[in-house]
Amino acid sequence: MSKVGIIMGSTSDMPVMQDAIDILESFDIAVEVDIVSAHRTPDKLFDYGKNAHTRGIKVIIAGAGGAAHLPGMIASLSPLPVIGVPVKSSNSIDGWDSVLSILQMPGGVPVATVALDGAKNAGILAAQILGASDKDIQHKILKYKEGLKDKVIEGAKNLKK
Amino acid sequence: MSKVGIIMGSTSDMPVMQDAIDILESFDIAVEVDIVSAHRTPDKLFDYGKNAHTRGIKVIIAGAGGAAHLPGMIASLSPLPVIGVPVKSSNSIDGWDSVLSILQMPGGVPVATVALDGAKNAGILAAQILGASDKDIQHKILKYKEGLKDKVIEGAKNLKK
Amino acid sequence: MSKVGIIMGSTSDMPVMQDAIDILESFDIAVEVDIVSAHRTPDKLFDYGKNAHTRGIKVIIAGAGGAAHLPGMIASLSPLPVIGVPVKSSNSIDGWDSVLSILQMPGGVPVATVALDGAKNAGILAAQILGASDKDIQHKILKYKEGLKDKVIEGAKNLKK
Amino acid sequence: MSKVGIIMGSTSDMPVMQDAIDILESFDIAVEVDIVSAHRTPDKLFDYGKNAHTRGIKVIIAGAGGAAHLPGMIASLSPLPVIGVPVKSSNSIDGWDSVLSILQMPGGVPVATVALDGAKNAGILAAQILGASDKDIQHKILKYKEGLKDKVIEGAKNLKK
Amino acid sequence: MSKVGIIMGSTSDMPVMQDAIDILESFDIAVEVDIVSAHRTPDKLFDYGKNAHTRGIKVIIAGAGGAAHLPGMIASLSPLPVIGVPVKSSNSIDGWDSVLSILQMPGGVPVATVALDGAKNAGILAAQILGASDKDIQHKILKYKEGLKDKVIEGAKNLKK
Amino acid sequence: MSKVGIIMGSTSDMPVMQDAIDILESFDIAVEVDIVSAHRTPDKLFDYGKNAHTRGIKVIIAGAGGAAHLPGMIASLSPLPVIGVPVKSSNSIDGWDSVLSILQMPGGVPVATVALDGAKNAGILAAQILGASDKDIQHKILKYKEGLKDKVIEGAKNLKK
Amino acid sequence: MSKVGIIMGSTSDMPVMQDAIDILESFDIAVEVDIVSAHRTPDKLFDYGKNAHTRGIKVIIAGAGGAAHLPGMIASLSPLPVIGVPVKSSNSIDGWDSVLSILQMPGGVPVATVALDGAKNAGILAAQILGASDKDIQHKILKYKEGLKDKVIEGAKNLKK
Amino acid sequence: MSKVGIIMGSTSDMPVMQDAIDILESFDIAVEVDIVSAHRTPDKLFDYGKNAHTRGIKVIIAGAGGAAHLPGMIASLSPLPVIGVPVKSSNSIDGWDSVLSILQMPGGVPVATVALDGAKNAGILAAQILGASDKDIQHKILKYKEGLKDKVIEGAKNLKK
Repeated sequence: MSKVGIIMGSTSDMPVMQDAIDILESFDIAVEVDIVSAHRTPDKLFDYGKNAHTRGIKVIIAGAGGAAHLPGMIASLSPLPVIGVPVKSSNSIDGWDSVLSILQMPGGVPVATVALDGAKNAGILAAQILGASDKDIQHKILKYKEGLKDKVIEGAKNLKK
Repeated sequence: MSKVGIIMGSTSDMPVMQDAIDILESFDIAVEVDIVSAHRTPDKLFDYGKNAHTRGIKVIIAGAGGAAHLPGMIASLSPLPVIGVPVKSSNSIDGWDSVLSILQMPGGVPVATVALDGAKNAGILAAQILGASDKDIQHKILKYKEGLKDKVIEGAKNLKK
Repeated sequence: MSKVGIIMGSTSDMPVMQDAIDILESFDIAVEVDIVSAHRTPDKLFDYGKNAHTRGIKVIIAGAGGAAHLPGMIASLSPLPVIGVPVKSSNSIDGWDSVLSILQMPGGVPVATVALDGAKNAGILAAQILGASDKDIQHKILKYKEGLKDKVIEGAKNLKK
Repeated sequence: MSKVGIIMGSTSDMPVMQDAIDILESFDIAVEVDIVSAHRTPDKLFDYGKNAHTRGIKVIIAGAGGAAHLPGMIASLSPLPVIGVPVKSSNSIDGWDSVLSILQMPGGVPVATVALDGAKNAGILAAQILGASDKDIQHKILKYKEGLKDKVIEGAKNLKK
Repeated sequence: MSKVGIIMGSTSDMPVMQDAIDILESFDIAVEVDIVSAHRTPDKLFDYGKNAHTRGIKVIIAGAGGAAHLPGMIASLSPLPVIGVPVKSSNSIDGWDSVLSILQMPGGVPVATVALDGAKNAGILAAQILGASDKDIQHKILKYKEGLKDKVIEGAKNLKK
Repeated sequence: MSKVGIIMGSTSDMPVMQDAIDILESFDIAVEVDIVSAHRTPDKLFDYGKNAHTRGIKVIIAGAGGAAHLPGMIASLSPLPVIGVPVKSSNSIDGWDSVLSILQMPGGVPVATVALDGAKNAGILAAQILGASDKDIQHKILKYKEGLKDKVIEGAKNLKK
Repeated sequence: MSKVGIIMGSTSDMPVMQDAIDILESFDIAVEVDIVSAHRTPDKLFDYGKNAHTRGIKVIIAGAGGAAHLPGMIASLSPLPVIGVPVKSSNSIDGWDSVLSILQMPGGVPVATVALDGAKNAGILAAQILGASDKDIQHKILKYKEGLKDKVIEGAKNLKK
Repeated sequence: MSKVGIIMGSTSDMPVMQDAIDILESFDIAVEVDIVSAHRTPDKLFDYGKNAHTRGIKVIIAGAGGAAHLPGMIASLSPLPVIGVPVKSSNSIDGWDSVLSILQMPGGVPVATVALDGAKNAGILAAQILGASDKDIQHKILKYKEGLKDKVIEGAKNLKK
């Protein structure tokens, strides 16, 4: 069964990354969550990056803050699409460091970067990627988008009351 | 057959976006290229976004500069994964406008953003997305990565001479 | 009767956008308020943008945060002057994303951008636009400016006591 | 007859500001061009700001670079809508100084800011403002937008050849 | 008697600007405090700028936030040295707007800019300017510097205990 | 006789700093020019800073680029007013490093900062500082301002031809 | 015995700098702590910089905020490796001023800069520098790195429960 | 014999990194140069980082551009002090990406960051690190500093002619 691998550099990233888990579970997509630190567990990083695609993982979501090297290093090791979530950690310079060290990857090694602290969107993007070859998931995405619309329409109605 | 849709806001984005076409063609992945301007052809934008997934396109790559709305608007209209390429156009404030107006999408509507002028990486990412459910393409990605490595090793050898 | 259309991407923008409503009502200018999300209700966006000028609206004020596409997309669809209010939403990178994705519109499709969270100024600007061809409103603007001056003079007096 | 007043801080701003003149003339809207420096001709600034609305000017376009005070000071003196064009002058810090000193006006005194060096958009915005109460001009705007679309469609066709 | 004129754009700048008053009073230098808003009281601005040097004022300190035009406009009107204090007001984009719109003055019209919210330093600088031709004040500056040193030495001693 | 001391961190700053020399000489104010590097000649820095005020210098202008420590260190050593000129040197990050390391001085030690590469304004500011207690120099400043105005008026006339 | 000299511009930097002391003491490396202000105690700065290497100090850690000149000036005076810690002080512009005025040193005078408020890393770097020629310290570094890894592995285990 | 390892992400970084080689050779310090790409040769990265300290290397200098992960990843793998050189590569956003992704390392894994393109200073810093325990090298550093001073003094003399 297709799975999304969700990793983050530290347990302190969990409050942000939980959004990715929640949205994927709402789409009934299996997730596997782990802590992998590029700077503190480089061996685990290597092992994870080299083998994820061999055990059923189709997309990797990697969140990290500051000089965030986790998404890019995983992307260098794995043939899978890697989604990077810049996390605004406590010592970050307003999030710019996380954003730029994930986004500005050199030619040859892309990371699909989402907004600062945008773990929810990372989850949706992972679903869209699986949905590209799975009509059932794509249908759920379309339904999810309907839900977004309905909520705005509802908000607009309440406003007019 | 699976196809990648490549669109851009203006013909002036072509020199940057050509890299996406070239890399995808080197992977033997079919591409369909078009000019769609969020601000000048909004009807075409709507039509493209709503229907791309119904005619064989699996991934969309959208490049735009300045206050770049094309990737985000396509993402709002389509259930497909959308890859955004921030283009450093002539009137851009050093590319920051393109980067931020593509990256910082609200919850619910992700755009997979790559580096400034990073069309080559957009193409590779599209291939990785297709490769998530196509072993043949994934194999090509792995081979491509070998090629990247070989080139660096070669460079290192020349250096030592 | 001339009307100002005020729209915003989300009900969460209301605390900021209320200032535009209040100042316009203080000038006895009719306002019509709605929620229109570029990313979650693209059909409503299209409908609003294409038809606003046909039903008595003379100026549109559009507020949005993050990768703010609402003002620019409305400007692409409507012949009316569009005033954009960059909103500093919770996930914004200090407001830079909202400012740049509203301000840096490409040639051909202007958005009249005001300061970050500057909804009050958006309201005054809308009144000035109507006042350009309505002496009564222009007179109210002149009186309003007198009031601004009086308040500063009063503050200066209190300081000296 | 309605007129648009176009002013700039220095003759060196002319190459940028010419775009505003050209687009307005293409709409058959009368323009009056002058050099007014907030820092070098403060008396002329005062005179201009206080009297522009009394001699047929309906909208003012003001362009300036660096610590650009011209648009904001005119806005403080005139009841007319003022459009500010941040000019990327030679000593500017990448245009940020011009953008921020025009955009970030305090509550009560709006400046309708357009993109860096966006004089063409300033001209179109001025036309849209006049068009809010002049069906003839609004019609020209709609036609202009058609032209923008046609040019993109044409570009897309050439691409496919 | 020599006087330092201290002005600010709004009474809300007073908590920051008080530091300038306090330090100057500690040097027994006379100050004259007023509220002058470039955008809301342009006539008072003109009057102040044109006449300050004729009534005993030798240095002007001007504080303002956001698109801060007060220091630069006073500098355009007065032959006196003008010290600008960028104030980090509530709607400021992290203070960058205040800093750049005071610092980046065009050739011919300098403003002596101090740090963000640096009113204390503005006061010391004003004293140094008067001290350039007044040995008594210069002596006080030298003594003040001794005091700064003593406080650090004391802090270092306490640390070692 | 009153003198202005002009120092810079390197001979490569001379093309920028020449503007300060030229404008001061046009006011018949004596200048003394020297190279003093905070990082390469710290002893000379100390000697200069401690003694400048004892040999007739009334104002110091210090220009430096990158992590520019010269103006601030001189300000820490001298009781004189110090004007800092941020120079956009070749390795600078767009001038931001020079600007911030001169402007953001701690409380107690001001540097009167002018615009990036704004040596001409540094010279005018030095003249204004001397002019605060010298009617003859102040008169020259007033005349200089007249000249600025005349040049703009002339430019405006040529425009209308 | 080898010692690390830790200095900071103000006692208010102590809460940040304490991390450097703690980590070095955990490695049993002697530290000597002092307050040295570039701007308020320039004589102490000179004395410290010129003599530190003559009394057993092998590495200097210098922390400062705002226009931070302490690390760079010490580096200009001492032949020792100097580690700079940018401190996000209260008046700092989001830390950018501290970072740039420590990092962007001119050719010839390096400062080994660590992350904003990164005093802990400054301590580790000092230990690594001593460890380059001291196998015992290098061994402690390797053990410390093991500890970092163990903590992440532990966190990952807890996550899975 | 002590050696400095100099690595860079690509042969295109060589023109910048050559400065580090040159200055170290001028100090008669042995260097070993190699190309190691974090993203294209991750295995070589691992091997290099884990073993450098076992074969006589005492300090590592690592240069990279864009989302620069090489210095930080080497620092995660090696107990040696790692000096990071942010390189302003062609696709960099003005160098900010390189600077932030090297500087902002998380607690536990420092990188000694030097200025943008500051390879010369990286070389000097490496020499200072070796000099901390080698009086001969420290002596060369002191002599080098004398040379810097002499050059400034010479420049000052030429200026006065």
